Amino acid sequence: MFSSSTYIERRKALSGKLSGGVVLLLGNGESPINYHANAYRFRQDSTFLYYFGLDLPDLAAIVDVDSGQATLFGDDFTVDDIIWMGPQPSVKELAEKAGVHLTCPRRSLAETVQGYVGKGRKVHTLRPYRAEGYGELREIFGTVPDASVELIRAVVSMRDKKSAEEIAQIEYACDTAYKMHTTAMQMCREGVSEREIAGAMEGIALRRGWGTSFHSIVSQRGEVLHNHNYDGTLENGRLLLVDAGAEATSGYTSDNTRTIPVGGRFSGRQKEIYDIVLAANNHAFEISRPGVRYVDVHLAAARVILDGLQGLGLVKGPVDEAVAAGAHYLFMPHGLGHQMGLDVHDMENLGEQYVGYDDETRRSDDLATRACRMGRRLETGMVVTVEPGIYFVPELIAKWRAEGTCSEFVYFPKVEKYIGFGGIRLEDDMLITPSGNRLLGERRIPITTDEVESVVIKV
Amino acid sequence: MFSSSTYIERRKALSGKLSGGVVLLLGNGESPINYHANAYRFRQDSTFLYYFGLDLPDLAAIVDVDSGQATLFGDDFTVDDIIWMGPQPSVKELAEKAGVHLTCPRRSLAETVQGYVGKGRKVHTLRPYRAEGYGELREIFGTVPDASVELIRAVVSMRDKKSAEEIAQIEYACDTAYKMHTTAMQMCREGVSEREIAGAMEGIALRRGWGTSFHSIVSQRGEVLHNHNYDGTLENGRLLLVDAGAEATSGYTSDNTRTIPVGGRFSGRQKEIYDIVLAANNHAFEISRPGVRYVDVHLAAARVILDGLQGLGLVKGPVDEAVAAGAHYLFMPHGLGHQMGLDVHDMENLGEQYVGYDDETRRSDDLATRACRMGRRLETGMVVTVEPGIYFVPELIAKWRAEGTCSEFVYFPKVEKYIGFGGIRLEDDMLITPSGNRLLGERRIPITTDEVESVVIKV
Repeated sequence: MFSSSTYIERRKALSGKLSGGVVLLLGNGESPINYHANAYRFRQDSTFLYYFGLDLPDLAAIVDVDSGQATLFGDDFTVDDIIWMGPQPSVKELAEKAGVHLTCPRRSLAETVQGYVGKGRKVHTLRPYRAEGYGELREIFGTVPDASVELIRAVVSMRDKKSAEEIAQIEYACDTAYKMHTTAMQMCREGVSEREIAGAMEGIALRRGWGTSFHSIVSQRGEVLHNHNYDGTLENGRLLLVDAGAEATSGYTSDNTRTIPVGGRFSGRQKEIYDIVLAANNHAFEISRPGVRYVDVHLAAARVILDGLQGLGLVKGPVDEAVAAGAHYLFMPHGLGHQMGLDVHDMENLGEQYVGYDDETRRSDDLATRACRMGRRLETGMVVTVEPGIYFVPELIAKWRAEGTCSEFVYFPKVEKYIGFGGIRLEDDMLITPSGNRLLGERRIPITTDEVESVVIKV
Repeated sequence: MFSSSTYIERRKALSGKLSGGVVLLLGNGESPINYHANAYRFRQDSTFLYYFGLDLPDLAAIVDVDSGQATLFGDDFTVDDIIWMGPQPSVKELAEKAGVHLTCPRRSLAETVQGYVGKGRKVHTLRPYRAEGYGELREIFGTVPDASVELIRAVVSMRDKKSAEEIAQIEYACDTAYKMHTTAMQMCREGVSEREIAGAMEGIALRRGWGTSFHSIVSQRGEVLHNHNYDGTLENGRLLLVDAGAEATSGYTSDNTRTIPVGGRFSGRQKEIYDIVLAANNHAFEISRPGVRYVDVHLAAARVILDGLQGLGLVKGPVDEAVAAGAHYLFMPHGLGHQMGLDVHDMENLGEQYVGYDDETRRSDDLATRACRMGRRLETGMVVTVEPGIYFVPELIAKWRAEGTCSEFVYFPKVEKYIGFGGIRLEDDMLITPSGNRLLGERRIPITTDEVESVVIKV
């Protein structure tokens, strides 16, 4: 965790953004796997971590916006606990690390909050995402209250601009991802299983931190966007899509994707598609800067993709019109990126309308932009992923052809020749700076076809 | 999963053990980490897996004990899901793999169960261990019903005897653990972090299966029994306790502990304690066979430990009396082992009084045996861990000395000289066979001090 002054400052800033009332933040508990005592690796709630820095289960906190006073709720360990777990910090000591002076036993939380409600004070809460969180709120309020939009806006307005100490943590996670992805490249040869590569990457992430920031995608079926199985065995000539990130013990994340030729050589046809995706990725870095709407960067990347595919004969007609009609959705049915920080999809639990959009930029249902999670204007300090891709999804191609969607822009007979090609995505992490942006991580993970081919071990 | 006939047979046997009614088994859902869409690796409920073999979220099933008919509840994927996830098996196809003929949408589960209740039929349920499970039962029944003891006894009586195909899966997990533990030994040198070793082991477990079967313990503070942090850096002369197991993709587990000298050489003092623990482990293998109560094996191991410690001057008086008084609890405040199978603490969620004990052998509060999770008579096909240990827990030594506990058997001035020593545990997995038992795994993980020293790389 950072020094206590960081958390004191953050809570002060939060209070300054709210009109009044009390903020209730619930930390996470343990998540049982297959029986109560066998839990997944503990992960603290990111907003709790942001304002209190304490990475232990079963804590909660209140910030009184009017007095600025924070209270930490938690239970001290018993002598028996200490026999089993060794000396443990007291709740008082934990509170001190977070710059908090008041502590209470965890069981008094409900009564305390009910006291505020009884006095007619507004209690701001966030929407839970675990069943335990729903249960706790129900216990306190008798029902799950609506999340406070005022609190969400305040939290987003702080968490979406990363400080230098946060950037350092994200870059640590990026450097872990560098090792993960170059290891995947080195392992990318015939006969190796997808599972082995996923396992090796997870091992690296755990050696250097909390683990992977999400369930890695390691698949020769890159066109299957939500593909979380590792049952394939690598075959020469195919492409392996690896989408994986690391999480530092501080909770800060990275997220990168590379697409690797099994055996170490891209075919001519693979290289043609690959270079279009790479051009879209690079173009996003060329044009992203404070004040630019990310939905416009998405559309610019879409233009690069349709332009390139037109060169290969898959797309026809004026590219600007094709982009406006959303023809790129057939090849890239997802947005260009998302914010990244303490969550790999940063603040996703707070609601996309506040995180990826705002009052000025609202999500549209147009095919051209409907897949964008992040559309708002970029601001200095934001961290976003840049992850264009081209996929050939048989079911989507069949659906569009049957419906006649974008038939004036898509040359289906040619597109259908690519069924079985798979998919390519190239993803980097970008920090918005006053003068534009920079790629996060000490070094960019090998990305040109030459660079990637030189890393894959030939057998 | 095994062939459908395995699950058909199991359900038939289960029905035969129940007097009537309907069995409701809930599969697990996804467990969110830090927002809804970012989930931990999915883990199916073990009892659901045992009777249906289906390793996917959001399933549930009913077995009508009287008709023998099973129904699978689940939802088919939509066309949109398939665009994102690729072709998916239908619920009908899943049911077929499990030998089930009837399927229903998931949303009809509550109504179906309520229909049974309305007809006055007994609905047998198990106790949930995740908040989601509590929520689901509450939704169906209006409250969380007591678990059916009849169902628990029936399930335990089946799951506690492992079939040949189950043993093969457990041995696969044991072989993964062999690689994990020998890797840890090779890495066990000054300057390496505990986290690096934990990460490397997790990587191996993931390369060969689902991952580790529980959060590995990798600690130079072996006396801290519940120690799940990896913040230490290895120092020459200290002991590293590594308690880690693997889980195959089938869900079957392994669980082993080794204690390794950092730098590769045990000191004379370490070797003395180590060899006592090893003798206790070996002794348990010598005497375990069908019909023997595991609590008696625990006491026999305790005798070996106290005998050895008397030889070193830490214990005094007649050893049999010391065992009866529970003096060994000071050095080994845990039981000799637990059942192991689809859960690393097999069936722990079903209740220790049914899994580790029975009507004949009940848990006692005596110091000598109170720490035993597993006390029942062994039966052919059972798998148990054998994990004696000797620890020097400063807080426990201080407590006993202050209270005068077992002061006629413990020579505290000598014991206190071992504060800082840490702890040693040596754990293997044992199958009970008609003629006695055998150690599981193709090879025993190096365990004598000579064997361990020869694996640790000297630098």
